Amino acid sequence: MRAYTLGEIAKFIEAEIIGDADVKINSIATATVAQNGQLTYIVAPKYKKNLIHSRASAVILNRNLLNSCPTNALIVDDVYLAFAKLSHYFKPPTPQLTGIHPNAKINHAKLGQGCLIGKNVVLGKHCVIGANCVIEDGVKIGNNAYLYANVTILQNCVIGNNVVISPGAVIGAQGFGNAKDRHSRWHTIAHLGNVVIGDDVSIGANTTIDRGTLEDTQIHNGVRLDNLVHVAHNVVIGQDCAIAANTGIAGSTTLGKRCMIGGMVGIVGHLNICNDSVVNAKSTVDKDIKTPGIYTGIMPLMQHKQWQNIGIWLVKLDKIVKHLNIKLKNLKGY
Amino acid sequence: MRAYTLGEIAKFIEAEIIGDADVKINSIATATVAQNGQLTYIVAPKYKKNLIHSRASAVILNRNLLNSCPTNALIVDDVYLAFAKLSHYFKPPTPQLTGIHPNAKINHAKLGQGCLIGKNVVLGKHCVIGANCVIEDGVKIGNNAYLYANVTILQNCVIGNNVVISPGAVIGAQGFGNAKDRHSRWHTIAHLGNVVIGDDVSIGANTTIDRGTLEDTQIHNGVRLDNLVHVAHNVVIGQDCAIAANTGIAGSTTLGKRCMIGGMVGIVGHLNICNDSVVNAKSTVDKDIKTPGIYTGIMPLMQHKQWQNIGIWLVKLDKIVKHLNIKLKNLKGY
Amino acid sequence: MRAYTLGEIAKFIEAEIIGDADVKINSIATATVAQNGQLTYIVAPKYKKNLIHSRASAVILNRNLLNSCPTNALIVDDVYLAFAKLSHYFKPPTPQLTGIHPNAKINHAKLGQGCLIGKNVVLGKHCVIGANCVIEDGVKIGNNAYLYANVTILQNCVIGNNVVISPGAVIGAQGFGNAKDRHSRWHTIAHLGNVVIGDDVSIGANTTIDRGTLEDTQIHNGVRLDNLVHVAHNVVIGQDCAIAANTGIAGSTTLGKRCMIGGMVGIVGHLNICNDSVVNAKSTVDKDIKTPGIYTGIMPLMQHKQWQNIGIWLVKLDKIVKHLNIKLKNLKGY
Repeated sequence: MRAYTLGEIAKFIEAEIIGDADVKINSIATATVAQNGQLTYIVAPKYKKNLIHSRASAVILNRNLLNSCPTNALIVDDVYLAFAKLSHYFKPPTPQLTGIHPNAKINHAKLGQGCLIGKNVVLGKHCVIGANCVIEDGVKIGNNAYLYANVTILQNCVIGNNVVISPGAVIGAQGFGNAKDRHSRWHTIAHLGNVVIGDDVSIGANTTIDRGTLEDTQIHNGVRLDNLVHVAHNVVIGQDCAIAANTGIAGSTTLGKRCMIGGMVGIVGHLNICNDSVVNAKSTVDKDIKTPGIYTGIMPLMQHKQWQNIGIWLVKLDKIVKHLNIKLKNLKGY
Repeated sequence: MRAYTLGEIAKFIEAEIIGDADVKINSIATATVAQNGQLTYIVAPKYKKNLIHSRASAVILNRNLLNSCPTNALIVDDVYLAFAKLSHYFKPPTPQLTGIHPNAKINHAKLGQGCLIGKNVVLGKHCVIGANCVIEDGVKIGNNAYLYANVTILQNCVIGNNVVISPGAVIGAQGFGNAKDRHSRWHTIAHLGNVVIGDDVSIGANTTIDRGTLEDTQIHNGVRLDNLVHVAHNVVIGQDCAIAANTGIAGSTTLGKRCMIGGMVGIVGHLNICNDSVVNAKSTVDKDIKTPGIYTGIMPLMQHKQWQNIGIWLVKLDKIVKHLNIKLKNLKGY
Repeated sequence: MRAYTLGEIAKFIEAEIIGDADVKINSIATATVAQNGQLTYIVAPKYKKNLIHSRASAVILNRNLLNSCPTNALIVDDVYLAFAKLSHYFKPPTPQLTGIHPNAKINHAKLGQGCLIGKNVVLGKHCVIGANCVIEDGVKIGNNAYLYANVTILQNCVIGNNVVISPGAVIGAQGFGNAKDRHSRWHTIAHLGNVVIGDDVSIGANTTIDRGTLEDTQIHNGVRLDNLVHVAHNVVIGQDCAIAANTGIAGSTTLGKRCMIGGMVGIVGHLNICNDSVVNAKSTVDKDIKTPGIYTGIMPLMQHKQWQNIGIWLVKLDKIVKHLNIKLKNLKGY
């Protein structure tokens, strides 16, 4: 891993240092997790508590939080943008794959032709790796893995025992995190976390699981993912969940255990979905689910003409209710 | 193909045999299709009629259906779970691809570099197979196929004449079928059916078509599938259908001829969609379509604030109607 | 490029020539763009103005528009079908990739093992091309490109500087354009346009961007596309847009600058979305957006039972309103 002094980092992100420019920083971590030798960042005053208790060696923050900073500070105007820029300095170098790296422990796996295995890869017993798979440096895979053809697993991902991955799946691609500057330009965040997949998991064809920003995207034991599912950065999918095709789960959402998510469901980011939630196909989950049960949110299918007829009124439902002088309290009894 | 005695199978799934333990079973089939030498399973009393008329050599069932069983019986508590476990014993062995198998009939096809062709593959005349394509054992492809780069076609799939497949498509991956045990653990079903694609079909980039459970997923002549479409196990898509991008069709649904399905439509499983159905983009099809026509089921787009205003009332529509003392019969005249 | 005489083209599409059969046609273009040496087509009387002002050397049209044709005419019954058939004659020949073409200018790029680079490809400085990538003939890529593994870029696509493409993405596949004949058979249109991607763009895993029909699909500078996004033929995505995972944009839609499109949004074809439009996840955009702002169109999530209760009434909203004798004008005041 690369390490930098706080002085170097201040230059990278054009920050003012308050503290010791010689402190060595070897990685970035979230405020609640960061330890000695790590740097963190605080994007808003509402995270002040995390700042006060942080054990990080340095913090990127706005000047107005400086009084609450218990350690070395890097002062910038746009903290998230500074973090985005800095993240690239901690990204591991590009792996250069050439056949099976001599260093890789492949444990007599059956390797399909054209597959590439990087440095420090470790495969468990009885693995089958399909043709033209690409497994980058540092990936760890347990026993009895079965990877079909054309699977891509990026650097350092960790996969348990008895995992099946269908063709075209991509594990550990960069997450979709970008910081906007004042010119409305996007700055990509380098995603430094991993994907960690438990035992007895199966992953469908052309499904994508992005790596975490700083922490890991997690797929727990026994999970079933169908084809063309998208799992964003920092998502946690609890044990024994089953998620049908074309579903997307946005960043930092956590699913409890045994959830059953239908096809083409969209789950927005930063939500908590409790254990044993069942969401019917095509629904949108835009708020936490706190009670186990069956949930639905789709428009019923109609003859197109009928849909046009109701659409006129649907978008005026609030006005209709006002016209009828109905109040929310009127509906309590029903 | 592998074959087992009923006695061996009883051990695999911990079943009680009522009948002849020496009977040879060479494959599994659905109850209405199974013939001598095949085993079937009955998951619920509602399929009793299929059981009574089955020509299978043996049936996995619950004890309470034993009286209706016309042949050898394997009694278990959880039939679907037993089937899931047993399916793996009939899965063909893992193909090991190495370049172009000497046994494959490639018929002077133009083969892109890095493409792999398995044992017993047959290609028709004038085929073009793109770079890094993987075509597993036993695949049959007709004349004039054009496969772009990075296409994966799994074991034994059958593809007609004049078929075009765009990059990254995956044909014949495992279906998403899993049986849950009493500990809420999922047991994957090995999908033993094929994908059978007719003539003059085109398949978009990164589209996935899963193989059938026991019977075949079918794409009939003249079908057009756009990019990132998901076609689940046992789906049948009728002649000359066109299906736009990001659409998903769940397991065992049948589309008639000449259907036009817009982009990002979700069609749930086990439905029948009649000939000449047109479904507008983003709609959810959650029931059979029995009359040709144009169908829609989407929420109209609004300013977000307006959507919030109507949302409050939308989820209370039943209460509003009760408050207004409207009955379904009141609406008959309109 | 191939060229044909008008006489040859008339035979290809079984058209009647009114004019000079010896005129050389070297490509097809849209009516407003076509110049000398190019052929165009007019599918309906509403495009008469384009016909009258066209500088094309020949036009495919119906007989009833012949009087308005300023140049050589090819008369057919079904113009769109004739165009579909003709398009294939202008498709460039199939590239045959073999390792790194000696002709390609790879500019010391780091090339992953198994990647294939076609004829006349040009890579800028400091490019990294991942393992098993396929880059077809004539592709141009700027400086500092980073292509992860298993990316496919088809013929002649043009990509700017500092572009990052995640694994499994497919750039330049055939668009989903098909003409129906009177037997309800689909005839594929060969897509002769390119994909043109600007500078500082990033493209997610397994995302697909189709090439234009005659003109180019365009992704402007600074755009961010997440995983499993579908961008259809002739779409234009304006500068600094960000589009989250699983979203699909249908053919010929134009997005202005700085739009933020949530995950699994569907945008139908031939729309104009203005600068600074924000569309929330899972919404359907089925009409132009003319005013910057935040837009939403999803059904709220409910307990399934509640959804069933409201669904009964939702599809009868027009009848309820009639029963209550509410007119649109009644709602003006609210």
